[in-house]
Amino acid sequence: MSAEQKATNITWHEGYITRADWERLNGHRGAVIWFTGLSGSGKSTIARALEEALFERGIRCYVLDGDNIRHGLNKNLGFSPEDRQENIRRIGEVAKLFADAGLIAITAFISPYRADRDQARAISGTDFIEVYVECALEVCESRDPKGLYQKARAGLIPEFTGISAPYEPPLNPELVIDSATLTVPEAVARVTDLLEKRGIIPPAA
Amino acid sequence: MSAEQKATNITWHEGYITRADWERLNGHRGAVIWFTGLSGSGKSTIARALEEALFERGIRCYVLDGDNIRHGLNKNLGFSPEDRQENIRRIGEVAKLFADAGLIAITAFISPYRADRDQARAISGTDFIEVYVECALEVCESRDPKGLYQKARAGLIPEFTGISAPYEPPLNPELVIDSATLTVPEAVARVTDLLEKRGIIPPAA
Repeated sequence: MSAEQKATNITWHEGYITRADWERLNGHRGAVIWFTGLSGSGKSTIARALEEALFERGIRCYVLDGDNIRHGLNKNLGFSPEDRQENIRRIGEVAKLFADAGLIAITAFISPYRADRDQARAISGTDFIEVYVECALEVCESRDPKGLYQKARAGLIPEFTGISAPYEPPLNPELVIDSATLTVPEAVARVTDLLEKRGIIPPAA
Repeated sequence: MSAEQKATNITWHEGYITRADWERLNGHRGAVIWFTGLSGSGKSTIARALEEALFERGIRCYVLDGDNIRHGLNKNLGFSPEDRQENIRRIGEVAKLFADAGLIAITAFISPYRADRDQARAISGTDFIEVYVECALEVCESRDPKGLYQKARAGLIPEFTGISAPYEPPLNPELVIDSATLTVPEAVARVTDLLEKRGIIPPAA
């Protein structure tokens, strides 16, 4: 399966209600916040805490998470480089739809390849905040919350990022979070500060 | 590509903020409204008018439309039976995510196969309102807003629903809309009445 355009007898519908209408109703802008980092770096934890902080401020958002997307939209994809690329492409497209609905889409995927993340950025066509959750492999491996590194070291999981598959750190992320030194609330505050600075969400009351 | 589950080293994350939290914030329930019918039957028109009516009442919704989804998430799918199935599967999964975010997902696709629509219903795991936009083929063909029937009759579009590919009408849809006799506002009112009756949205002020 390739990502080329197969459908030709289609036209783009503008729709009566626009993204700007939803943003006005919601009182904040739509956006995509794209967390990337090794397994165990803290992406999902920070993403869920960010969701909670935004909810408390009445800001509409939604977390797209590797763990739950893999049970649904992308359950017919594996972990080969080709499937990883299609995995990230689909998530980029869904994040774009959520932003178009006036929500802040929060994605928490390893998304190890630079080219795939850049594609997601290009797809989004909106404020795209790439947040690199930086954490040394040894630290992630010592956390190993799901025992995945242990299995990967034992050869039970093929193509595991950091062990048997590469991770390409972002070159120019909008934000770097060092999860070995920051607390989760501190990490969340870094993100919300940036969202305020960019005018995506209003200042905290 | 099959829809079987390939990813095994994953666990389901519940998340801190639940669908019920978003529903409370929004003041209505999440749901999936699934329009089905022939090309030219009026699905998209009614879906967009419904979106507008819900927006005016402050109800969060989002239209997933064959025309715009085909440019993004599903641009790597064609119109073969297999690709149509995957097309509808992905849309069902995305609609579920929107409902989980507390929104009313409105889908407007021909979705010609009963089994595919039933799969979308099963995926949604929520209020699923199947709306059959009923309209005789001759009427749809006489409207032919995009000139597609003319092209299909000329053999320029293969596997065109109603001409060279089958359409299977729903057996037990939640709602049937006869678009040859109802006006667009009347059709919208049928849907919003049903949503009110089911407690998905509050009564109009």
